[in-house]
Amino acid sequence: MIGLSSYAGVMESLMNSAEEQQPSSPLANSWSKIQESSKNQKPKCVGGFVLVHAGAGYHSESKAKEYKHVCKRACQRAVDRLKAGALAVEAVAAALVELEDSPFTNAGMGSNLNLSGEIECDASIMDGKSLHYGAVGAISGIKNPVLVANRLLSEAQKGKLSAGRIPPCFLVGRGAHDWAVSHGIPPCPSEKMASKFSLSAYKRNKRKMELAEKIDTGHNHTKKRRQSSENENGSGCLDTVGAVVIDLEGNVAAAVSSGGLAMKHPGRVGQAAHYGCGCWAENACSMNSHSTAVSTSGCGEHLIRTMLARECSAAMQSEDAHQALLEAMQNKFISSPFLAGEDRVLGGVIVLRCCRCVEPPPSQNIQGILVEFLWSHTTESMCVGYMSAQDSKAKTHISRLPPGTVPGQCLAIEGGVCRLMSVVECMEPHPVICVPVNGILNMTPWNHNTPPGP
Amino acid sequence: MIGLSSYAGVMESLMNSAEEQQPSSPLANSWSKIQESSKNQKPKCVGGFVLVHAGAGYHSESKAKEYKHVCKRACQRAVDRLKAGALAVEAVAAALVELEDSPFTNAGMGSNLNLSGEIECDASIMDGKSLHYGAVGAISGIKNPVLVANRLLSEAQKGKLSAGRIPPCFLVGRGAHDWAVSHGIPPCPSEKMASKFSLSAYKRNKRKMELAEKIDTGHNHTKKRRQSSENENGSGCLDTVGAVVIDLEGNVAAAVSSGGLAMKHPGRVGQAAHYGCGCWAENACSMNSHSTAVSTSGCGEHLIRTMLARECSAAMQSEDAHQALLEAMQNKFISSPFLAGEDRVLGGVIVLRCCRCVEPPPSQNIQGILVEFLWSHTTESMCVGYMSAQDSKAKTHISRLPPGTVPGQCLAIEGGVCRLMSVVECMEPHPVICVPVNGILNMTPWNHNTPPGP
Repeated sequence: MIGLSSYAGVMESLMNSAEEQQPSSPLANSWSKIQESSKNQKPKCVGGFVLVHAGAGYHSESKAKEYKHVCKRACQRAVDRLKAGALAVEAVAAALVELEDSPFTNAGMGSNLNLSGEIECDASIMDGKSLHYGAVGAISGIKNPVLVANRLLSEAQKGKLSAGRIPPCFLVGRGAHDWAVSHGIPPCPSEKMASKFSLSAYKRNKRKMELAEKIDTGHNHTKKRRQSSENENGSGCLDTVGAVVIDLEGNVAAAVSSGGLAMKHPGRVGQAAHYGCGCWAENACSMNSHSTAVSTSGCGEHLIRTMLARECSAAMQSEDAHQALLEAMQNKFISSPFLAGEDRVLGGVIVLRCCRCVEPPPSQNIQGILVEFLWSHTTESMCVGYMSAQDSKAKTHISRLPPGTVPGQCLAIEGGVCRLMSVVECMEPHPVICVPVNGILNMTPWNHNTPPGP
Repeated sequence: MIGLSSYAGVMESLMNSAEEQQPSSPLANSWSKIQESSKNQKPKCVGGFVLVHAGAGYHSESKAKEYKHVCKRACQRAVDRLKAGALAVEAVAAALVELEDSPFTNAGMGSNLNLSGEIECDASIMDGKSLHYGAVGAISGIKNPVLVANRLLSEAQKGKLSAGRIPPCFLVGRGAHDWAVSHGIPPCPSEKMASKFSLSAYKRNKRKMELAEKIDTGHNHTKKRRQSSENENGSGCLDTVGAVVIDLEGNVAAAVSSGGLAMKHPGRVGQAAHYGCGCWAENACSMNSHSTAVSTSGCGEHLIRTMLARECSAAMQSEDAHQALLEAMQNKFISSPFLAGEDRVLGGVIVLRCCRCVEPPPSQNIQGILVEFLWSHTTESMCVGYMSAQDSKAKTHISRLPPGTVPGQCLAIEGGVCRLMSVVECMEPHPVICVPVNGILNMTPWNHNTPPGP
């Protein structure tokens, strides 16, 4: 275990192990050369790694223990699958099932109720190896929406349906439910999906809404009425869940699942079912030196319109992962021209990027995978957990914006590095870096020590 | 009217009018400088322009007249709105309504029926000025799905709902239908949505499917059974509709609407309701020198996984629009790593890009907008229409792959240039350029005269 007072320094020394073998090269070269040289070798078991989130939103101290527990269990589930030789996409689905099954998270069981008091869930999954994708939107009566998304993905990989029909990658509503049941996924009575938390939140929200509408109607029925209560929802209950995984073979996968915004309109679909917005995974290839996987959480409409998962994935091909994520969250999210009218841009991401590396002499024939994992959020807090296949248990953490900073206008970013080899070194997360964003519009060098904005 | 034997030459002379004013500049500079200089001038009426498509698929000679007619009417509708001072987003919605109302197109009235014999439509619209977006998926019982998408867009622009709730940008299924009706859009009985064409196609497809499944079950019930009938669907009935518009003020907008693939699973949502996949529109800004608008058509799953609308829009910031679209269709669609397992990649796009320009001396204070409009498809044919506000009627055209070329493996690309000023010069489309794609994987210079592949 290495402390992370100097992330840059640690990264450099880890990277060097690859570069010393390929003196001419950026990582792109080392990746293809190692792939080349390993063609004649038996694939080497290098473990695997999982990073999960139980949502970007607000996690009260009182519930912190529960959130951490579910993250821990989700990591363990994924690692169990990885150790059994599962591919990343199977492991990431396993993690999501655990996260969905918790009554504390806003996904699967215990999801937010919509305006009509019903639960409608969104979920999606992407396999970085095949680049296949599956998603369900506004699905009711299924305990684990991610399993339907995963089944859509695997069915699509089998090729065309009868009479040359192209298999769907995205199903919604009743049709999604029926497809799931016809593919062996058992239905779950809707009344069993709600938890005591989601039911009491629904009652509270309904009262709040009725009150707000009463006030609006009585005093302020103008064009501007909508702005009157805009801060009431805050970043309260956005706790979508997700995970990113790298497997034994170096494949990545990502998934996300959500009950959606509380009191949403029936039929509303958020980022968790939107291609490029909820999750993204791409194995390294001739164009990309790094494999990347991303899962997002927060206000669905903000995450859709900024296509945040894909933007973060693309940014992760830059040299410095930490700087790249910082800039992506700043320029492609908080200050995005797509959200120019929004005063608070609420969301969070977990990101994983990795490349193969070779140990420096004398142990140059030991291959490994260098994994950088990060999370960043503009919400008050974000709960994450991570674990490698060699760890005995997962680490969990609730990242919070420093006191006095404004959610939706500032961001926190943290992360660590892990090398998957015979000996795994897994590091503590970064300290929080809070970046005030008011007035910063161009890609100028970031001053991480700037005091938080007003 | 100028013939287009030398597109490049014409482009050069049109571009020069801008460059002579800003000798140091790419178009990016001329755009911002003209914006600067025009601050003190009254906005000048420069007309507007619309390009529509009635789908990339197969348009029989027998129905060609009908397809052209509906394109003509759609262009006229948009131009009528533009002349009345409407913004691009309103004009593009008007064009879509006309396209949806035709029983010949696979959108709105006369849409393809799904497996259960029902009509479920997808539609979306994007405003390049506000960058707002609205979409509906798998919506039934609404004559004009694009009007629901447009209403979602305009409602979202009004700000938050009561109790700080964020308005939805994407609604599906029953919830979308109910939202539409509650916002004053009248329901339409489902039985009125089907046309005699869509009903007879459903019966034909059902028989074909039953036959295919019988054959599969009887003779060939193996893992590979799915491939056995893969060519039967061909590029037959993919005739989604769409439009792109530039208005008097230089704003762009794009929209798309579809009944989806014939015999799709209920609840299946295609590219027409997918952000970044069905349509895209972005006004020029400090980052982008050109305003761009794109609308796609074809196999939804292929268009989703390649995010084709957004990819084409991004490509359009390159210097040469024609070359950029050619490369985007080649590298980001036909040869996309996201569709590595597909033998035929079926789709088409219409693209519009524009920038402001200034006449060379002595008439240097005459401002105008240079519009480049293109279409490209890998399907057998694509039906388009286009018209400027100064034209007395629309031009229509059915673009076809040359005989002997393979749909899904080759592409056709055509286009023209139009300058919106006091005198409008609108050019004939390019001749078809057919590019064989087998074995071409890198961005090498294109040989447009290479004979078609096997």
